[in-house]
Amino acid sequence: MKPGTVILGIDPGTNILGFGIISAGAHGPEYVDMGVLDIRKETDPYGKLAIIHDNVSEIIKTYHPDILAIESPFYGKNAQVIFKLGRAQGAAIVAASRAGLPVYEYAPRKAKEAITGNGAASKEQVSLIIQRTLKVELDDKYLDATDALALALCHYYQSSSPLASLKGSGSWESFLKEHPDRIK
Amino acid sequence: MKPGTVILGIDPGTNILGFGIISAGAHGPEYVDMGVLDIRKETDPYGKLAIIHDNVSEIIKTYHPDILAIESPFYGKNAQVIFKLGRAQGAAIVAASRAGLPVYEYAPRKAKEAITGNGAASKEQVSLIIQRTLKVELDDKYLDATDALALALCHYYQSSSPLASLKGSGSWESFLKEHPDRIK
Repeated sequence: MKPGTVILGIDPGTNILGFGIISAGAHGPEYVDMGVLDIRKETDPYGKLAIIHDNVSEIIKTYHPDILAIESPFYGKNAQVIFKLGRAQGAAIVAASRAGLPVYEYAPRKAKEAITGNGAASKEQVSLIIQRTLKVELDDKYLDATDALALALCHYYQSSSPLASLKGSGSWESFLKEHPDRIK
Repeated sequence: MKPGTVILGIDPGTNILGFGIISAGAHGPEYVDMGVLDIRKETDPYGKLAIIHDNVSEIIKTYHPDILAIESPFYGKNAQVIFKLGRAQGAAIVAASRAGLPVYEYAPRKAKEAITGNGAASKEQVSLIIQRTLKVELDDKYLDATDALALALCHYYQSSSPLASLKGSGSWESFLKEHPDRIK
């Protein structure tokens, strides 16, 4: 992934929307920002969708991400829940698509697997590895923001070579340059 | 319903979006316009959502509707289909909600019932009654536009008194004024 690429991760819900932003640095993914949007105060379900759209537009205007990585739902949930998640996701995607951002969807399991190597990893495990990788402190109160960072990181790893995903450098050569001690 | 109120009906799909517009006249619902938006040419599923949003915004700017009546899906469909319909509905609702329009959802069965008195009425039956009520010719090629008109009409009847829904006048008195022959 080209250094400087900014990835916006979004975990859209009908009550809380989490967002997390990372950028591709020369040596791996770097933390930019994260947050949650609490939409419980808006009682009109249609008003919620406008709030999601407008806030995602604002985030895009502020951070100029190159890509949106968004959560696709777990289809085991009931139809009405899935329909409402679809609406929330649609509202966020409209904002991204209108701003010209390519959109990538990842299931929660896929994000866990990309980050920890295990699709069934616990939330604590995912949080721990994100904290180490991005050198950021995560609070359990903002689980939705953590999930959003996980989606952004997942996209980063999906789009990088295996070595880059491990060491943040694009080739063996540059890896050796950074670790001259490995040359025997 | 206050005469002059304009109702926009939308049947949002991931391939074709149908729209139908009616207004509340002094003597009942009146036809304004209808059409379909073919989004099959756009192959990017996220681009489709932006197209839906932008076109619904355009329709709102052109016709200044006061209300959006939108189809809510039949939950018997599979989860992935429902999720995608949710996204499409979400994209349309964002446009309406941002323009300040109140949104009402109606199931297809509810719309059929409001128009024909029978929730299990055939498409042909619904089409026939809409054609008579709105004095408009409907083409089988534009079934999605017909469905959208049905949603708008459904909202009209839901918001009007029973007499108004039958005769388009708000009171027996005004009905008699228009039909002096009925005074014996």
